[in-house]
Amino acid sequence: MNKVELLITNGIVMTMDPDLAVIQNGAVAVTGDQITAVDEVTSFSGWAVDKTIDAGGGIIMPGLINTHTHAAMTCFRGLADDLPLAEWLNNYIFPAEAKLNRDMVFKGTMLACAEMIMSGTTTFCDMYLFEGAVAEAAKQAEIRAVVGEVLYDFPSPHYGPLEKGFEYTENLIKKWQNDPIITIAVEPHSTYLCAPELLKKAADISEKYNVPLVIHVSETEFEVSQIKERFGLTPVSHLAELGVLSPRLLACHCVVLNDADISLLKQSDTRVSHNPESNMKLASGISPVPDLIDAGICVGVGTDGCASNNALDLFLEMDTAAKLHKVNRLDPTVMDAMTVLKMSTIDGARSLGLDKITGSIEPGKKADIIVIDTHKPHLTPMYHPESHLVYAVRGSDVDTSIINGKVVMENRALKTIDIETVIADIRDIAKNVVKS
Amino acid sequence: MNKVELLITNGIVMTMDPDLAVIQNGAVAVTGDQITAVDEVTSFSGWAVDKTIDAGGGIIMPGLINTHTHAAMTCFRGLADDLPLAEWLNNYIFPAEAKLNRDMVFKGTMLACAEMIMSGTTTFCDMYLFEGAVAEAAKQAEIRAVVGEVLYDFPSPHYGPLEKGFEYTENLIKKWQNDPIITIAVEPHSTYLCAPELLKKAADISEKYNVPLVIHVSETEFEVSQIKERFGLTPVSHLAELGVLSPRLLACHCVVLNDADISLLKQSDTRVSHNPESNMKLASGISPVPDLIDAGICVGVGTDGCASNNALDLFLEMDTAAKLHKVNRLDPTVMDAMTVLKMSTIDGARSLGLDKITGSIEPGKKADIIVIDTHKPHLTPMYHPESHLVYAVRGSDVDTSIINGKVVMENRALKTIDIETVIADIRDIAKNVVKS
Repeated sequence: MNKVELLITNGIVMTMDPDLAVIQNGAVAVTGDQITAVDEVTSFSGWAVDKTIDAGGGIIMPGLINTHTHAAMTCFRGLADDLPLAEWLNNYIFPAEAKLNRDMVFKGTMLACAEMIMSGTTTFCDMYLFEGAVAEAAKQAEIRAVVGEVLYDFPSPHYGPLEKGFEYTENLIKKWQNDPIITIAVEPHSTYLCAPELLKKAADISEKYNVPLVIHVSETEFEVSQIKERFGLTPVSHLAELGVLSPRLLACHCVVLNDADISLLKQSDTRVSHNPESNMKLASGISPVPDLIDAGICVGVGTDGCASNNALDLFLEMDTAAKLHKVNRLDPTVMDAMTVLKMSTIDGARSLGLDKITGSIEPGKKADIIVIDTHKPHLTPMYHPESHLVYAVRGSDVDTSIINGKVVMENRALKTIDIETVIADIRDIAKNVVKS
Repeated sequence: MNKVELLITNGIVMTMDPDLAVIQNGAVAVTGDQITAVDEVTSFSGWAVDKTIDAGGGIIMPGLINTHTHAAMTCFRGLADDLPLAEWLNNYIFPAEAKLNRDMVFKGTMLACAEMIMSGTTTFCDMYLFEGAVAEAAKQAEIRAVVGEVLYDFPSPHYGPLEKGFEYTENLIKKWQNDPIITIAVEPHSTYLCAPELLKKAADISEKYNVPLVIHVSETEFEVSQIKERFGLTPVSHLAELGVLSPRLLACHCVVLNDADISLLKQSDTRVSHNPESNMKLASGISPVPDLIDAGICVGVGTDGCASNNALDLFLEMDTAAKLHKVNRLDPTVMDAMTVLKMSTIDGARSLGLDKITGSIEPGKKADIIVIDTHKPHLTPMYHPESHLVYAVRGSDVDTSIINGKVVMENRALKTIDIETVIADIRDIAKNVVKS
């Protein structure tokens, strides 16, 4: 008799596999950390099942991939909004971050993990300070994560001089290299805060250990004009000249690109993280994502940090991504629902080098799976599941979440995080943030 | 001893009164359909209270006002997306609407009422066919509504020839004129589907009974070019010449406006309904809302129908409104959180002529109040309630809703709608919609 530890059954399975197969009345079998079978419900009759999760006619799909965030910035959620960028950074964010310590980063990340799990994210890619604490929080929350310490030319409030930053990064890589859910990345901040030597060394470390390289690229017109003034090149062409573009590189934002930039990204198979809500709220601009996709560039979706969004709900980010480009191009056919779903699942995984492991529901992959409860007024009726997933489902409709085979949320109850303690911790931190 | 039937207590009260007063630890007293007192919690000690609702440190605020929707289009939610406008209308929406009948409109509206109450809306303004059924559904759901039968030149699938439409409208006005929560409006579709005589007669009826006049205006470039070709005027200047602009007129969409249009809207004190998500999804364009507000024009927010959005959650519409104009103007200071909150509450009420009754929490107004549960990961910490309400709260965070003094939802349980029956009804309707 066939045996399986966990059967998620009685749902529409959006596999996001290479055929984008949809199984109308399907089930997914999981044993250990792996997906072992995906099929019609009927094909599992007679199987011995240890635990069954009934999707109740809802949607079973791969967990979402948040390709760019600064998780611990949950501590500063809504601290200041609607301000000119310089005033926002200099008068609010930088003074708040001056108080940052390892404990705040751990607790703020734990809150972010709770929010992400509760809204359907099963993998996130983080850039911030004290990333050792981020790795530990993600490990404790049992959420898949790619984390990397931010590197820049000037001394860091965390590790001090830059050499220490590289040393810290390499130590993290070695410490976590065999972990099943934590991956360490090398994360230089940007071309405007990182000298050419820093960028080249970061790329070398990324190549040496074969880990992702993550950087902010061309987020604003101001950044692009700065780099043009300094180097006579756009940020993308500057990175190309330094030999930093590669399939390991994840270029976050990519708002201000010209045609040559797009060609360079394409030729090098560099991956892009699209952060529409942050780009809107900070008034940075609109990334030419439909052009990137037309060019065949792999684009994932990210929320950016909570100070500039102010939430980590990738379902809302998908909704916004789909609509923003339609109105920007005055074309309702761009960024259709399935394209946006791919970006947030399998292409998100690919952009982090994790597409062998996660991003789709296929036998042999790790079990990163979420179940959406569609028995709700705002999800009634349902003609096309992909339409609902992009245009109607919100994070709060995620009922159950499984990461690396482990049920981390069931019926909206978190299994790995003591959420009352986390909320109390962050409220204490917030009191200290506003104390002058 | 002071007596009160209902005390909503222990929350941050966002009054949205003329001073935009915020009471940090406040309470609201309600007797019958009216708000009788708004103050600090301590001032109610010793009062005799029949029923207490504890906001648990969350937010107490006026219910949201959805100034433009086609509620029964919930029946077609997600039927077709991402298509060129003509293909979407001709191949999907019009054939589906050909099957429309009074029963579908009643049930579809009932589903919309459930969704709206569950996401914090306490008043909606509707335009569709069989609006008598919409009034009855709203009355049964006990949600405040402004409803009007759509009028156009050609025979209606509901009432037949146009004269019957005017007759139907006047009969609705007379039937509901003393109702505490239902208001009938006169609703010509648009300048492109309504001849000048229709528009003038509609305005006359609106004036005669002193009820709102609601119309789609300048939603697309195509519409504006059509009216220019036919009349040599923009839709707004065409309406001005016909004498139709007035404080009773609610102009929905107003995407494509020139400076002269804005002046005409301002001079006449015409009100505007802004529908950012629908305008984005249909790729219509971006309304110059910051200019309208700068000019002193009263602007409310609407979701439009579920076929083009695809949900009725005004919290998400606020989030989008705040962010869309920032990126469109490349200015992060436009559409700050409090401006957007005003649009969705008191200015929404004003745009429907209901600002004496609803849209703010003030003694003497009707009790249209919602309570937001902020004890959640994605709403932690909370530095500024107005920031959370626009950028982080979602409809699913609304815990309790009171309309005209009646508790219509408590702890997310609907009190006036049998939601299981409604969901089953709509699933049956959907099966029939896709049957060819």
